[in-house]
Amino acid sequence: MKKAVILLSGGMDSTTCLAIAKQEGFSCYALSFDYGQKHSVELTAAKNIAQHFQVTQHEIVTLSIGNLSGSALTDPDTLVPDYVESNLIPSTYVPARNTTFLSIALGWVEVIGADTIFIGVSAIDYSGYPDCRPEYITAFQHLANLATKTGIAGRSIDIATPLIYLTKAETIRLGHQLGVDYAMTISCYRATQDGLACGRCDSCTYRKKGFQEAGIVDNTQYQ
Amino acid sequence: MKKAVILLSGGMDSTTCLAIAKQEGFSCYALSFDYGQKHSVELTAAKNIAQHFQVTQHEIVTLSIGNLSGSALTDPDTLVPDYVESNLIPSTYVPARNTTFLSIALGWVEVIGADTIFIGVSAIDYSGYPDCRPEYITAFQHLANLATKTGIAGRSIDIATPLIYLTKAETIRLGHQLGVDYAMTISCYRATQDGLACGRCDSCTYRKKGFQEAGIVDNTQYQ
Repeated sequence: MKKAVILLSGGMDSTTCLAIAKQEGFSCYALSFDYGQKHSVELTAAKNIAQHFQVTQHEIVTLSIGNLSGSALTDPDTLVPDYVESNLIPSTYVPARNTTFLSIALGWVEVIGADTIFIGVSAIDYSGYPDCRPEYITAFQHLANLATKTGIAGRSIDIATPLIYLTKAETIRLGHQLGVDYAMTISCYRATQDGLACGRCDSCTYRKKGFQEAGIVDNTQYQ
Repeated sequence: MKKAVILLSGGMDSTTCLAIAKQEGFSCYALSFDYGQKHSVELTAAKNIAQHFQVTQHEIVTLSIGNLSGSALTDPDTLVPDYVESNLIPSTYVPARNTTFLSIALGWVEVIGADTIFIGVSAIDYSGYPDCRPEYITAFQHLANLATKTGIAGRSIDIATPLIYLTKAETIRLGHQLGVDYAMTISCYRATQDGLACGRCDSCTYRKKGFQEAGIVDNTQYQ
C-alpha cells in the first residue's frame, strides 16, 4: 500500500487533503506541529480528525520556534488582528513555517519509505503568504530530491497540493463530496480552548466566505 | 551592523563558521537544536562557544523529531557505528536535518532582519550526506527567496557555506588562524556527558585525520 505524509493542522484545508489522500488509497501518516500557536486547540481537532480518518500514525512534533517567529500567531504581545482587505502580508505570517513543516515531513517520508507529502496550501483564497504559491512548491519539490537519500537513489518525492488552484468554496464542495464533517475542523486564529471561532480573523473570514459561496451550511461554532 | 544567523552545533565546522562570520563583521545570531541527539553534550559546547564569541543572541530550539528520524544518532535501539570506509550513506544520517535546520534559520533571518545564514557543510571530508552538497545548497538558496517576505521584497537571502570546498585539514588551519580553540568543540557522535570523544566514529575519524593532515596538535580529549 502506498504511503503518504499529510501535514494536518486541524483546519479545513489539511483535513480535505487527508480525505483526498484516503480516497486515493494512501496509507496516511498525519503530522501536526505544536509550535507555540495561540490557537493550540487546533491540535485537539487534528487528533480527532486523525482518529476519525483512521490514519496509520499521527505524530505531533514540538517545535519551540515561538520566540523566533515574530508572528501574531505566537507572540503574546501582538494581538491577532481582524481581517482587513489589503495587499500586505498580515502579522499572522509565521516566517518559513511551511518550509519548516515540509522539511520535517520530508525526513519522515524517508524513514517510513513513503514518496508523497500532502500539503493543503491554496494560492487563491489566502493571506498572501509567500510559501503558499505554486512557484514555492515547485522549488521545494526540486529541493526535496536533492536533499534526500530517496532522491539520490533516483526515486522522486512528490509534494501533492490538490487544493492549490481551488477557491475555498471549491475546497468545501470537494470535501463535502468526500464526506468531510467540517464541524470537526478549527480554522480560527483566536479559537477558544473549547474550539469556538471568533468569526473576524483572516482565517474565519475566508472560511465563512467559502461556505457562503459554496452554498453549504456553515456549522462552525462561533463565540 | 549586518546580521547573520549561524547554525551552531558545537562541532568544529560550525564553530569555524562562527569565527569567519565574526571576522567578516557580522552581528551573530547563533542557532542550535535539541533534536534528541544522543551526543547532546554538544549543546553545552555550543553554549560555551556562543558565549566565547560574544554572539548577539543564542537560541536552542527544541525539535522532537527523534521518533521520526530513524537515525543511529537518535534511536536508542541503534548503536552509533565505528567509521567504515564505504560509498553508502551511514546510519548516522538524519533525514532532512539540514533542510529542517536551514528552514528554522530562515524564519529567524526574517524576524531579525538579517540576510545571511552560515552553515558549516563540507562536500570534501564528509559522510556522503546528500544535504551537504553544493547543488543542495543552491536549491535551498533558490527556495529561500521564494519562501519569504524578504525574498518577495526583492532582497536576497544568502546561504553562506565558506567550508564547502575545504578539506577538514584546511578548515582546521583556517580556524587556527582565526584563533579558534578546537578543544571547546565536540564532534564525537558518542561523546560522554563530560565531553570525552570515542575516537572511532565517523565524526572522530574525520576530525583526527584533519588534525594529522593539518600538522596541528589535536587537543581533543579522548576516552
